[in-house]
Amino acid sequence: MQDVSSLVTQAREGRPRAVARLISLVEGAAPQLREVMAALAPLTGNAYVVGLTGSPGVGKSTSTSALVTAYRRQGKRVGVLAVDPSSPFSGGALLGDRVRMSDHASDPGVYIRSMATRGHLGGLAWSAPQAIRVLDAAGCDVILVETVGVGQSEVEIASQADTSVVLLAPGMGDGIQAAKAGILEIGDVYVVNKADRDGADATARELNHMLSLGESRGPGDWRPPIVKTVAARGEGVDEVVEALEKHRAWMEEHGVLAERRLARASQEVETIAVTALRRRIGDLHGDRRLSALAERIVAGELDPYVAADSLIEGLKES
Amino acid sequence: MQDVSSLVTQAREGRPRAVARLISLVEGAAPQLREVMAALAPLTGNAYVVGLTGSPGVGKSTSTSALVTAYRRQGKRVGVLAVDPSSPFSGGALLGDRVRMSDHASDPGVYIRSMATRGHLGGLAWSAPQAIRVLDAAGCDVILVETVGVGQSEVEIASQADTSVVLLAPGMGDGIQAAKAGILEIGDVYVVNKADRDGADATARELNHMLSLGESRGPGDWRPPIVKTVAARGEGVDEVVEALEKHRAWMEEHGVLAERRLARASQEVETIAVTALRRRIGDLHGDRRLSALAERIVAGELDPYVAADSLIEGLKES
Repeated sequence: MQDVSSLVTQAREGRPRAVARLISLVEGAAPQLREVMAALAPLTGNAYVVGLTGSPGVGKSTSTSALVTAYRRQGKRVGVLAVDPSSPFSGGALLGDRVRMSDHASDPGVYIRSMATRGHLGGLAWSAPQAIRVLDAAGCDVILVETVGVGQSEVEIASQADTSVVLLAPGMGDGIQAAKAGILEIGDVYVVNKADRDGADATARELNHMLSLGESRGPGDWRPPIVKTVAARGEGVDEVVEALEKHRAWMEEHGVLAERRLARASQEVETIAVTALRRRIGDLHGDRRLSALAERIVAGELDPYVAADSLIEGLKES
Repeated sequence: MQDVSSLVTQAREGRPRAVARLISLVEGAAPQLREVMAALAPLTGNAYVVGLTGSPGVGKSTSTSALVTAYRRQGKRVGVLAVDPSSPFSGGALLGDRVRMSDHASDPGVYIRSMATRGHLGGLAWSAPQAIRVLDAAGCDVILVETVGVGQSEVEIASQADTSVVLLAPGMGDGIQAAKAGILEIGDVYVVNKADRDGADATARELNHMLSLGESRGPGDWRPPIVKTVAARGEGVDEVVEALEKHRAWMEEHGVLAERRLARASQEVETIAVTALRRRIGDLHGDRRLSALAERIVAGELDPYVAADSLIEGLKES
């Protein structure tokens, strides 16, 4: 077992095994978790985190892969966190497109990590930020977080990005679905992928219309652009990168990037604190103190609120 | 606005408006919540709580209504808590059967309360026990809690009963569904309703077979009986009441009733405590302390775990 500081050093050097090991340690809430987090803290804050979300079938993985290629051409180190169960990066599906994960598998400037959507302590809302933190500290310039735009937790993860990209594809009725799912509220950049298919212009128009509904933007406000791509052929991908860079520059100019990162950090602390408190209370099960309180409630000597107060007091002493 | 003690006195006298008002106060987490709970505590512990669960269509509401009739014949005061969204008691559906809610609407010995399955602070697991507590303190001898045997929270509510009744009906493939839903583990009494239909005997046999699988009961253990009913005609309902009384007597003899009530009280305290802590942490949003921690995390001066510790410390002082 390597010590944490040498793992961190190796991760900074770009060694994928060290990165993998660190993510496993934080995901699994290993005993070294706190040591890892303390070691990573001063190394974080450099990565630009981009969330990609959209319904299954819109081409998220292909678009992610194409973005990796584009950023690699700029010489940037790229991390990919795939929390999409249908993503080939997550090992969930075969990718029939020309752009493959294996395009990047041998590139030391790319680190790809899939993440199970279940079974983690406190769920994805707890573990995804930790994994982002590892990739950030490992020196990734850009981190692409690929999620399915369906569940609540996926939307929460998308909210952890600096910039959120919402992907759509023509002929999937996505416009209306998107509105229902509330993803029209989270996109900073919209991509209509598979733009060589019939209906791409209609989808873009519909989306544009929906974005303009109820719009009340001021002069300095961000207007989410709509970019058309054929990610499988790499078409339009440079325009997506350009849109991302514009959004980043706009956020920096208006203090929005700092704001978002503060909100993200607050959320992260809150989630960790609630998880810890919940666990501590769970640990009291079978404890003499909880049993004694329960006995007094059953006897009608105590109401459950006063008992809960007393339990919380007990936590404070522990 | 009446004061709490006069509301409690009126509820004890069987005035439905006072009972309704008290349940609304506890459900809505009103400012008087703690006062209400303190006033109720010494009055609780007398009611026998029976949970009724099963898939939609098995006749839960009809059975509940028939049980109310049976208990009323014994002169008992009965409370009904309907957390089944499809229940006519919850206002969700029209009841085509002969037995109707209105049979009991004018009976001062019956109190019927429906409960929304959403939107409560902390959900049903939080609010159902509080409502049961009100009905208990109001002098109900028996409280029937009707839930749909589907969701996790419904199963949790069923676990709050002294005795759990699982209902099935012939020809619905309920046997296998029941096994899948895990309700074979929660039933103390099984009822095959609509027993005048084809397949009732087969359903009972299948159920009996499944219950005997992997059975390892000792001599004094409870063997869940299977009762056949036609609730809409009141047939078999007295046998259900008899099975319930037997189970109650068995629980008392073996200390199981006390055990279950202790477990229930522990669970209740834990839920209240977790909800309270979560809210306190939520209250810190926008708080200077959380903002300051988030700033230090973004600056890389602090890791989120140490920040969470500090937040929890802060709670202890608050």
